[in-house]
Amino acid sequence: MPRVMLITAYDGTNYNGSAYQPEATTVEGMLMRALKGLTGEDVELIGASRTDAGVHALSNLFVFDTGSTVPPDKFSYALNSMLPEDIRIMKSMEVDSSFHPRHCNTVKTYQYRIWNADVMLPVKRLYAWHCSFDLDIQRMQAAAHYLEGTHDFTSFCNTQTQTPDHVRTVCSVGVFREGQEVVIEVKGKGFLYNMVRIIAGTLAMIGRGKGEPEDIINMLEAKDRSAAGPTAPANGLCLMKYEFPDKEVSL
Amino acid sequence: MPRVMLITAYDGTNYNGSAYQPEATTVEGMLMRALKGLTGEDVELIGASRTDAGVHALSNLFVFDTGSTVPPDKFSYALNSMLPEDIRIMKSMEVDSSFHPRHCNTVKTYQYRIWNADVMLPVKRLYAWHCSFDLDIQRMQAAAHYLEGTHDFTSFCNTQTQTPDHVRTVCSVGVFREGQEVVIEVKGKGFLYNMVRIIAGTLAMIGRGKGEPEDIINMLEAKDRSAAGPTAPANGLCLMKYEFPDKEVSL
Repeated sequence: MPRVMLITAYDGTNYNGSAYQPEATTVEGMLMRALKGLTGEDVELIGASRTDAGVHALSNLFVFDTGSTVPPDKFSYALNSMLPEDIRIMKSMEVDSSFHPRHCNTVKTYQYRIWNADVMLPVKRLYAWHCSFDLDIQRMQAAAHYLEGTHDFTSFCNTQTQTPDHVRTVCSVGVFREGQEVVIEVKGKGFLYNMVRIIAGTLAMIGRGKGEPEDIINMLEAKDRSAAGPTAPANGLCLMKYEFPDKEVSL
Repeated sequence: MPRVMLITAYDGTNYNGSAYQPEATTVEGMLMRALKGLTGEDVELIGASRTDAGVHALSNLFVFDTGSTVPPDKFSYALNSMLPEDIRIMKSMEVDSSFHPRHCNTVKTYQYRIWNADVMLPVKRLYAWHCSFDLDIQRMQAAAHYLEGTHDFTSFCNTQTQTPDHVRTVCSVGVFREGQEVVIEVKGKGFLYNMVRIIAGTLAMIGRGKGEPEDIINMLEAKDRSAAGPTAPANGLCLMKYEFPDKEVSL
């Protein structure tokens, strides 16, 4: 049976996250329903990243095995005609039958957007966190630097997590302005539950002058969620792209 | 009685346009309700530009006279606490009692956004028109040039208009790429009903190879709506800013 990969993009506003829940509207649930309609199969989807309710994606991956005669590259077109407009298959393709989107050496890029002005612009309200206080980008950049590398990120992880190992490798944390937005771009090989949102909340806290950039060192060492800053709201977060060791899968 | 100007921004998705209609949800209707709640007055608002259902604004102006004791610059804060998040007052200020936002020599800037790729990105779906066919920017720029200046724009006006005079001055029409978007930026002193959307639909038609840039000359001369291209959808359009002869009122 061929294994097919779907590169999906979605507006997370109307979904209870990406991962299937029997009683809630989720991105995976919508994909399963569309695939059932198209192929008649109850496929088992393997998602690359779980995103929280309200988090967006330009590129999240799902794979499934299918006995359908639909050519792998045609799933995108066929599924888009059955899916709501806030979920799109940007591309579909056949992958090796052993390919697993979580068991490969991928690098993921997330962006967290902060609308940094007195009043929130209505057309940005679903895609950025509104912070009206002044943010010092240089302080945020200095703090971000301490997060790069391989660390125990227990302090930057929701306490509800069920993952025992909290050591992760963050390749880079960039902070830059784009018009009235402050963008935090985090690249890494794996992330814990709420990790990027806690990084964003902590950098914003330091950016507004509460604490010093070097405090990140103590936060990491504490291995205690209460040592870091608040969890920034879900709507500012977007999963941007996946890079594979050999090839890049993105828009 | 002081005259107060509100610089408003809104996401037009959920509104039947900016201008008040007794039986429909409009931006002006929401402003009137919030002003009634704040001041107790049934104020008469004068809007600078009527925008269609689904059209967005970063800066549209409304003025009103008020006997309220609220300081003019505090209306923004007070009204924002009463308005839904898809309408914001970016700034409020006192203006001369003779100031009328439509009877002054303003220049308005509109942007029309086209998402030009095979698949529409979900997070852009409310703010851009999806055109999957290839658009030739240079052809669109050449066509845009013929629209600049003072012309009779009858061919670029909805036939339902009640305005008898169809001569308008378009200061400039720019066409440029921004990532996967094609942006059409139109500056002018006044616009007819649907004029920018018909300009966008016509430029896209020429950009995909249906007709030549010089055809704009004949379209203008025809003074007949059927001579120009289709009306592009409302959601791609955004009123960006107002410039006054002396000062600039914008974000």
